[in-house]
Amino acid sequence: MLRKNRLFTPGPTPLLPSAQVAMASAGMHHRTAEFRALYTRTLADLKAFVGTRNDVLMLASSGTGAMEAAVSNLTSPGDKVLVLTAGKFGERWRDLTKAYGCAVEVVSAPYGETFTLGAVREKLDGARVLYVQATESSTGARHDIEGIARLLKGTDTFLVVDAITGLGTTRFDVDGWGIDMLIGGSQKAVMVPPGLAYLSVSERAWERMATARQPRYYFDLRKERKAAANGESAFTPATALVAALAAAMEFIRQMGEGNMAAGRDALIRNATISAEMTRAAAQTMGLQLFAPTCPADALTAIVPPNGADSGVIVRAFRDRFNAIVANGQGEMKGKVFRIAHLGYYDYLDTIGIIGALEHVLTESVKTRQYEYGVGLKAAQTAFARMTSGEEQAAGV
Amino acid sequence: MLRKNRLFTPGPTPLLPSAQVAMASAGMHHRTAEFRALYTRTLADLKAFVGTRNDVLMLASSGTGAMEAAVSNLTSPGDKVLVLTAGKFGERWRDLTKAYGCAVEVVSAPYGETFTLGAVREKLDGARVLYVQATESSTGARHDIEGIARLLKGTDTFLVVDAITGLGTTRFDVDGWGIDMLIGGSQKAVMVPPGLAYLSVSERAWERMATARQPRYYFDLRKERKAAANGESAFTPATALVAALAAAMEFIRQMGEGNMAAGRDALIRNATISAEMTRAAAQTMGLQLFAPTCPADALTAIVPPNGADSGVIVRAFRDRFNAIVANGQGEMKGKVFRIAHLGYYDYLDTIGIIGALEHVLTESVKTRQYEYGVGLKAAQTAFARMTSGEEQAAGV
Repeated sequence: MLRKNRLFTPGPTPLLPSAQVAMASAGMHHRTAEFRALYTRTLADLKAFVGTRNDVLMLASSGTGAMEAAVSNLTSPGDKVLVLTAGKFGERWRDLTKAYGCAVEVVSAPYGETFTLGAVREKLDGARVLYVQATESSTGARHDIEGIARLLKGTDTFLVVDAITGLGTTRFDVDGWGIDMLIGGSQKAVMVPPGLAYLSVSERAWERMATARQPRYYFDLRKERKAAANGESAFTPATALVAALAAAMEFIRQMGEGNMAAGRDALIRNATISAEMTRAAAQTMGLQLFAPTCPADALTAIVPPNGADSGVIVRAFRDRFNAIVANGQGEMKGKVFRIAHLGYYDYLDTIGIIGALEHVLTESVKTRQYEYGVGLKAAQTAFARMTSGEEQAAGV
Repeated sequence: MLRKNRLFTPGPTPLLPSAQVAMASAGMHHRTAEFRALYTRTLADLKAFVGTRNDVLMLASSGTGAMEAAVSNLTSPGDKVLVLTAGKFGERWRDLTKAYGCAVEVVSAPYGETFTLGAVREKLDGARVLYVQATESSTGARHDIEGIARLLKGTDTFLVVDAITGLGTTRFDVDGWGIDMLIGGSQKAVMVPPGLAYLSVSERAWERMATARQPRYYFDLRKERKAAANGESAFTPATALVAALAAAMEFIRQMGEGNMAAGRDALIRNATISAEMTRAAAQTMGLQLFAPTCPADALTAIVPPNGADSGVIVRAFRDRFNAIVANGQGEMKGKVFRIAHLGYYDYLDTIGIIGALEHVLTESVKTRQYEYGVGLKAAQTAFARMTSGEEQAAGV
């Protein structure tokens, strides 16, 4: 049978058609009034999407670029920082802060789990910055950012959150909780290709930058703030991606019938429904979720049954359906497979990948017969429960 | 939940991405060497797709334009013609031939059924042309073109087949069976927007045109044949659609690993699998197919349960999932709904629309409770049966 390109990876995610058109149409020069208007509007939209009064900036880089900016702009060599890690992206915070010569304290939890607030509190004293993920994409776990923020309230420890797969899949109160930097990426819930990072920067973070002694140039956020005030970027911006992001922001606003915050919440709800459908299906099929106690709605990591290698499952999804599902990363390679929910997915996508999963398990993991339709029925039941009455809502 | 634009109508069908890109990129002038090369190649590709040694021409019109050409180029006023009708498109042949003053004999079968060859044979004598559909899109029925062609073999009655939804969903042997004109449209199995018709023309059809006395100008096929010999169209061609069609032809060829006939057969097989999945689901759910004895693979027409109005079901698909499923046409309005299989559909699409159908029936036709997953399981079982071992085939 025909096999369309089907991305079910937690980034890159399926592209929004209006963003594709905008990207293909963008031939503008970046030092023009036209682009300045686009850039200014897109930054304002991002700010409303993030939901903060803080500055929001954009970088022509992957999300890791913004993570590096959050280290090089906020620390000095020898500073004590606290890194919370329970997966590959937590380890990236550790590696980044070490690369910049920080004195790195680590609170770690096993892959698939999250930290206790007690363990965080114990190591907090004297930390200049706490670095954490909102959702750990390598394991499908969600960390309690609100709880962590509460620990830090009133202290001098800055809170930096990698929300690259968290934005658009879980709620944040950036200003209320006191998040100093919240980081997002373009190829995630906002439905455009990789190449842009964006982040919010608190007032006290700007102050810290004046004294932070790390070498930085391309990711010097003060340069970007100054340029943004004139509707520009400090360095050549990725114009086509900005145009795509602008279209995506407009789409999200329309999901909220003109209100960006409502649109963002609808996008989060969309991921939650897709995640609930997938979790219900997996559990009814007797599959083990990898992060059952703290599941993120951005993606679901599932343990292959009967000790099978998840690479076999990932390959079967690809060969049989041209559906790209993610293998585990780092030490999780071969041990989990990951199905994404963030961004541009609808009911047909989600029910389709669950149906495909039933075939993949039947055909590839031969030690057990899976009955067709069992996972699908559980997903349908979850969908019906979560969306009854939704047909009255406006279509998007 | 998000609702993507989901076309499940038997034309227009979902657009092929590479055709969309080609269409958006096509800014060429039509009297240039560049366009002549494109046009010539596309006509040659269409010829291989149709599978004939006859001429194949293209018209900037909907499929009905080519149907009109098949009347105005092959008949003279007062000619006896035989029209086989079992639905709205059969009636179109009747109306067209009447509009041109032919002496129209009709063999009709009830909507949802097909003709007996005996009934056709009885009325055949003296008919200059027999007009028929390969698949009647208004009812989901398939007519026996091979059997009808056998009746006509060796007679002076020309055979004209509207294969607008038949091409790419059912097999034809144009030259072996002796089909004088076979008509297709762009918005069907070939996955591009409406606006182009194409048709094959037999040698004796060209001879008939010399004596056929009907007024004709735009649809005068002799003009198109002459222009096509120079890589041109007689009138301004729909350049962007031609570029899209060229990309679609290339896609179909790649489905056949470089062989157009193999690609076409793979496309037909694709529709057959989608149709079998849908028929299995519907029947397992206790739904009545509208054309159970002669179902087309282009689309499946289903009778709403419990005397419900199919408009309610069509509206629920749209409001709940933004999935556009077709209502009945003409006298079938309100009595059937139609789900398409022709063109760019894969497993996830088909399983998705069947899942959606289960919700629609549960929520909109309240006189009976449908159990989730029952139709899906039947569809999965059909898919598994028809595609086992397919993962070894090349992806397209």
